[in-house]
Amino acid sequence: MNFCSDNVVGVSPEIMAALVECNHGVAMPYGNDDRTLYLNHLFSELFETEVLVFPVATGTAANALALSVMSTPYGAIYCHHQSHINCDECGAPEFFTGGAKLVTLQGEHGKINAKDLAGAIARAGTGIVHHVQPTAVSLSQASEAGTVYSIREVAQIAEVAHSHGLPLHMDGARFANAVVTLECTPADITWRAGVDVLSFGATKNGAMAAEAVVFFNPDLAQTFIYRRKRSGHLFSKMQFLSVQLEAYIRNNLWLKNATHANQMAKDLAEKLTRLPGITLCHPVEANEIFVQMPEQVIVNLFADGFRFYRWDGEDSTTVRLVTAFSTKEDDIAALVDATRKYCFQHLSVTDN
Amino acid sequence: MNFCSDNVVGVSPEIMAALVECNHGVAMPYGNDDRTLYLNHLFSELFETEVLVFPVATGTAANALALSVMSTPYGAIYCHHQSHINCDECGAPEFFTGGAKLVTLQGEHGKINAKDLAGAIARAGTGIVHHVQPTAVSLSQASEAGTVYSIREVAQIAEVAHSHGLPLHMDGARFANAVVTLECTPADITWRAGVDVLSFGATKNGAMAAEAVVFFNPDLAQTFIYRRKRSGHLFSKMQFLSVQLEAYIRNNLWLKNATHANQMAKDLAEKLTRLPGITLCHPVEANEIFVQMPEQVIVNLFADGFRFYRWDGEDSTTVRLVTAFSTKEDDIAALVDATRKYCFQHLSVTDN
Amino acid sequence: MNFCSDNVVGVSPEIMAALVECNHGVAMPYGNDDRTLYLNHLFSELFETEVLVFPVATGTAANALALSVMSTPYGAIYCHHQSHINCDECGAPEFFTGGAKLVTLQGEHGKINAKDLAGAIARAGTGIVHHVQPTAVSLSQASEAGTVYSIREVAQIAEVAHSHGLPLHMDGARFANAVVTLECTPADITWRAGVDVLSFGATKNGAMAAEAVVFFNPDLAQTFIYRRKRSGHLFSKMQFLSVQLEAYIRNNLWLKNATHANQMAKDLAEKLTRLPGITLCHPVEANEIFVQMPEQVIVNLFADGFRFYRWDGEDSTTVRLVTAFSTKEDDIAALVDATRKYCFQHLSVTDN
Amino acid sequence: MNFCSDNVVGVSPEIMAALVECNHGVAMPYGNDDRTLYLNHLFSELFETEVLVFPVATGTAANALALSVMSTPYGAIYCHHQSHINCDECGAPEFFTGGAKLVTLQGEHGKINAKDLAGAIARAGTGIVHHVQPTAVSLSQASEAGTVYSIREVAQIAEVAHSHGLPLHMDGARFANAVVTLECTPADITWRAGVDVLSFGATKNGAMAAEAVVFFNPDLAQTFIYRRKRSGHLFSKMQFLSVQLEAYIRNNLWLKNATHANQMAKDLAEKLTRLPGITLCHPVEANEIFVQMPEQVIVNLFADGFRFYRWDGEDSTTVRLVTAFSTKEDDIAALVDATRKYCFQHLSVTDN
Repeated sequence: MNFCSDNVVGVSPEIMAALVECNHGVAMPYGNDDRTLYLNHLFSELFETEVLVFPVATGTAANALALSVMSTPYGAIYCHHQSHINCDECGAPEFFTGGAKLVTLQGEHGKINAKDLAGAIARAGTGIVHHVQPTAVSLSQASEAGTVYSIREVAQIAEVAHSHGLPLHMDGARFANAVVTLECTPADITWRAGVDVLSFGATKNGAMAAEAVVFFNPDLAQTFIYRRKRSGHLFSKMQFLSVQLEAYIRNNLWLKNATHANQMAKDLAEKLTRLPGITLCHPVEANEIFVQMPEQVIVNLFADGFRFYRWDGEDSTTVRLVTAFSTKEDDIAALVDATRKYCFQHLSVTDN
Repeated sequence: MNFCSDNVVGVSPEIMAALVECNHGVAMPYGNDDRTLYLNHLFSELFETEVLVFPVATGTAANALALSVMSTPYGAIYCHHQSHINCDECGAPEFFTGGAKLVTLQGEHGKINAKDLAGAIARAGTGIVHHVQPTAVSLSQASEAGTVYSIREVAQIAEVAHSHGLPLHMDGARFANAVVTLECTPADITWRAGVDVLSFGATKNGAMAAEAVVFFNPDLAQTFIYRRKRSGHLFSKMQFLSVQLEAYIRNNLWLKNATHANQMAKDLAEKLTRLPGITLCHPVEANEIFVQMPEQVIVNLFADGFRFYRWDGEDSTTVRLVTAFSTKEDDIAALVDATRKYCFQHLSVTDN
Repeated sequence: MNFCSDNVVGVSPEIMAALVECNHGVAMPYGNDDRTLYLNHLFSELFETEVLVFPVATGTAANALALSVMSTPYGAIYCHHQSHINCDECGAPEFFTGGAKLVTLQGEHGKINAKDLAGAIARAGTGIVHHVQPTAVSLSQASEAGTVYSIREVAQIAEVAHSHGLPLHMDGARFANAVVTLECTPADITWRAGVDVLSFGATKNGAMAAEAVVFFNPDLAQTFIYRRKRSGHLFSKMQFLSVQLEAYIRNNLWLKNATHANQMAKDLAEKLTRLPGITLCHPVEANEIFVQMPEQVIVNLFADGFRFYRWDGEDSTTVRLVTAFSTKEDDIAALVDATRKYCFQHLSVTDN
Repeated sequence: MNFCSDNVVGVSPEIMAALVECNHGVAMPYGNDDRTLYLNHLFSELFETEVLVFPVATGTAANALALSVMSTPYGAIYCHHQSHINCDECGAPEFFTGGAKLVTLQGEHGKINAKDLAGAIARAGTGIVHHVQPTAVSLSQASEAGTVYSIREVAQIAEVAHSHGLPLHMDGARFANAVVTLECTPADITWRAGVDVLSFGATKNGAMAAEAVVFFNPDLAQTFIYRRKRSGHLFSKMQFLSVQLEAYIRNNLWLKNATHANQMAKDLAEKLTRLPGITLCHPVEANEIFVQMPEQVIVNLFADGFRFYRWDGEDSTTVRLVTAFSTKEDDIAALVDATRKYCFQHLSVTDN
């Protein structure tokens, strides 16, 4: 059983069915097909405001392209030090922006906060030519620690950003999981809270390879199409990206899938944290669990064929467990049973 | 009926079936799945030599990433002035290489030649610090004019390139169409003729969105994986790219599809060029036809719902007609019949 | 005697004196000294309009920085195919713009013209995402062929550029030589004719290392200071750049020096072109002479210690002769005498 | 009196004399003059080993160009979080490398250490495609805190760097000040300790605008000349850069100047730290002093016309005082006297 990530599972059946169904006749290429053109309407409905939507195939493309229209090459983009854009994209933001600097903030449980942001901007040296200049703020919702920003937290960050003229980007690779947890509308946690550009993720929650860059601020979108093309992210048979997004939001599939994944994570966390020797590292607010386990328990679980990552390096006893739209209760039960067995074994050894 | 491009049609049924069939269980992400790992073997068999293969989703990504490992930022990349990399990728090669210059060559029917290349390199000022330095050569097979380089032509170009230490890239967006025309092995027209890196296209010939960057020279591939990741072209659910390529070459689907498209183009060209007022611009050696037509014929065809592009701008009477794996004989017949009707109408008008 | 370039001579005595005189006391660094701050005033007077001026040390820096604020990374910059920015800056424009493409125009005697420019822009595919987008136009005054654009020619080019929303850059590495030839004011041949940004050269005409980027359109200058800093072209002891520019324009030194250089070139050209076997390649309108000479004459002149460059490659019998502010009448006489001797020798040999 | 920086003073008289003396006759441009060609010899003698030397005009150019040949675009360059390359070059390293990431280390008194470096590299994820890849290490000697690395400290850092295949860069904007403090040879603190590339500063210690990039590892220098040209840092009248460096090292002027500046700093620090309310922030090991002062003392000194910078922002009571080759004992005395007066005033006020 594989808890490595929510991208180890395949495609949600509804989305695969939509891909198959879409495959007939001809369609104008490069996003000039009817399906793609209709996406702006669909997403405007979903977000209860006029938005501009651009499909791309990967989360890194979505984030880096979004940031490339939000920052100058000599810009400073504020983000959490553990954020995906800073740690896990091999420098894509730097590449797409032409060399902007990610200025990292600390902050508990993977989240930046308004106060730290305000302090960092105050120290930036705005207008002083020797320093990179503040251009944008980015946060991840849900965060890389599996936590979720409240509407109020996002609004406070947005207020600081906007008061300095900086647009706010939300990396929503796990946006659905956050929305489910918050029990709010997509609008409430994005533009109503001050988000200007959203990387709306679908791949981790059931799509094959589809993300949408959603602009609540259309001014920022002006050069997007050229940047997407010249980075190789304009698909000729674009309808096959668009239909994934269409099926993803139709009948609230995105929320249904995320609700399941979150529930599985919650169950798993509750059961694991009752076991001796297991410590939760972060609140479980989406579909990721970070726990510390005795080394011997990890080793035994690996030996039994369970798959998950040690977090923070090879010697770490912190592990990450990720659930997905397709995770089964039996998978959870099997992992809990095995962990229980090895935790008690470990307890009896260390007690003696 | 739509003759705009070979990317207006959907996905070859065999490839769509493979995508559906692939969708079960879990697979390690980012190319660490069994299917992707096996691609090196499959393509090494196909090309009768050890190759390294990297799937990406678009032709622009394939070309620009390939060139990014072949050129320094201060490099000169030699290519045809009408090549896709020079005209149709919104500056992607410049972006991915960090600013290399495409030095363009003339050459009839969309093809560069060894003599022009040798002359250009001789004038480059190699070693003189004021000039961009020769780093790579790129040709398109089939070319943007729908023509095909012979093995001898490629070999001569490769010889000039290699004699100056420059690797040779082949943009094979329509590689299958060229191989079918040449009736040669994939090996003969690539590494045996001196090609170092191939953008092996599949999307235009039946895939949903899949291309393979094939390295015959493994030294050039060393930094590829980092550049792919940081440009957002590393897919998490990579198996769905890889399975397209697998299905594409299995049972020679790629050659079957291209054979059909080429045959349709040949038929269409033969029939059109018999009509009064129609002039062929380039030999038809793949699945693209470039013809000059009387303006009134073009207008009438558009009015009847036929779709194709004027080439060389809005006022041009040169048009491009592209056939695909799914083009039907009836489509050809319909277009020929309509064109015949309007050509003779035009003839009677201009005769009076 | 060295006719290789106008940069083989040293510093104009007036400028060296100013450097020495400037060296006392303290001055705030990075352009915050009084002398630098006063430059805007001095150049505004010189150009009879409010300008923003930024000193840099090299012509390549001036050009590439100017273009970096005039073009997007996916832009097309129109220029002559033999222009310095295209041929002699090792890709600096591409580097500073983040990958823009120089789209080259032909044009006699090193000059682009309005008609060719209009045609190229019409073919560019503005608004079509596959193509680099027109962003700027650049011309060299005086040109790389030693010719000078008339006010009318510049105005016509500017009109085409501006009608498409493109700003016009003038590479004025030899601006002084052009102004002297035109017998016009600096204003007439720049902003009054439609130039938006000027690389105002001083190094080739007597400075040690100083050029000024002059903005007639202040909107374009907004990000310049950051781009200059981050490219390493902000001098800490800036006053030593600024004082060169100050001395250069004080008492019309720049015009005095250029008048001399132009006169020397004119004399030399008149005398050389009377000789048998010497053909002038371009009108001599500044301080550069391009002539074809018999190979044996070139060889003999080299043997006598005369220094100049063959143009267009090692086997070329076209040579470039450049005069400078410090060229002496004796130098001209010596070169003419020697050339005359070898031309007549050659004549007698070939006559027999 | 101005203690803002060592770049507020002018040019050392010996260097200005050399510039004047150099200004006669002709010299081949772009570094092909005899003086520049001889620099490799002069610096090889100075460093007691074969080196390759490239003059540039600014410290930012020296650092960014050096790093551009040491790192890939997807590289991680390790440096102190307060280093000049990270804080004071407006993103020049990111620009010149094509987007590499500066990974910052803490470390007391402005210095990185081998242990932190080893830890950071261990956590980097070498070979994992999602992460930027370790490529280089950079330290500043003297540091931005006015401290100096011992030979042993540099050697330990170099050992860690080299054990991971990373070259070591030394930002020597104040290299002379460090060498004087260490009482060692230039060789001892550079290549003998493991430094691969040195930015050898001269501007802050008496030159007009001249730095040398010194390669102890010639392999790294292969592409330098093209990168220098295309960044606009190749001077046509290069001899005027080279003669500054020549005069700077002739007769140990560089050490003489630095000895004076260091002595002034030492005197000033000793006298200031005896005053009530003054706290030293870092050991004074070069020509920079960082002290905390009562706010009222700072305000009073400013009112008296003393010039220096608050460090760490506008509200900070930490100030930086920099001495230079031309600082006079009277300047020191005046500053000490005034500070003493205001410190005791402040003491009497706060005591009541």
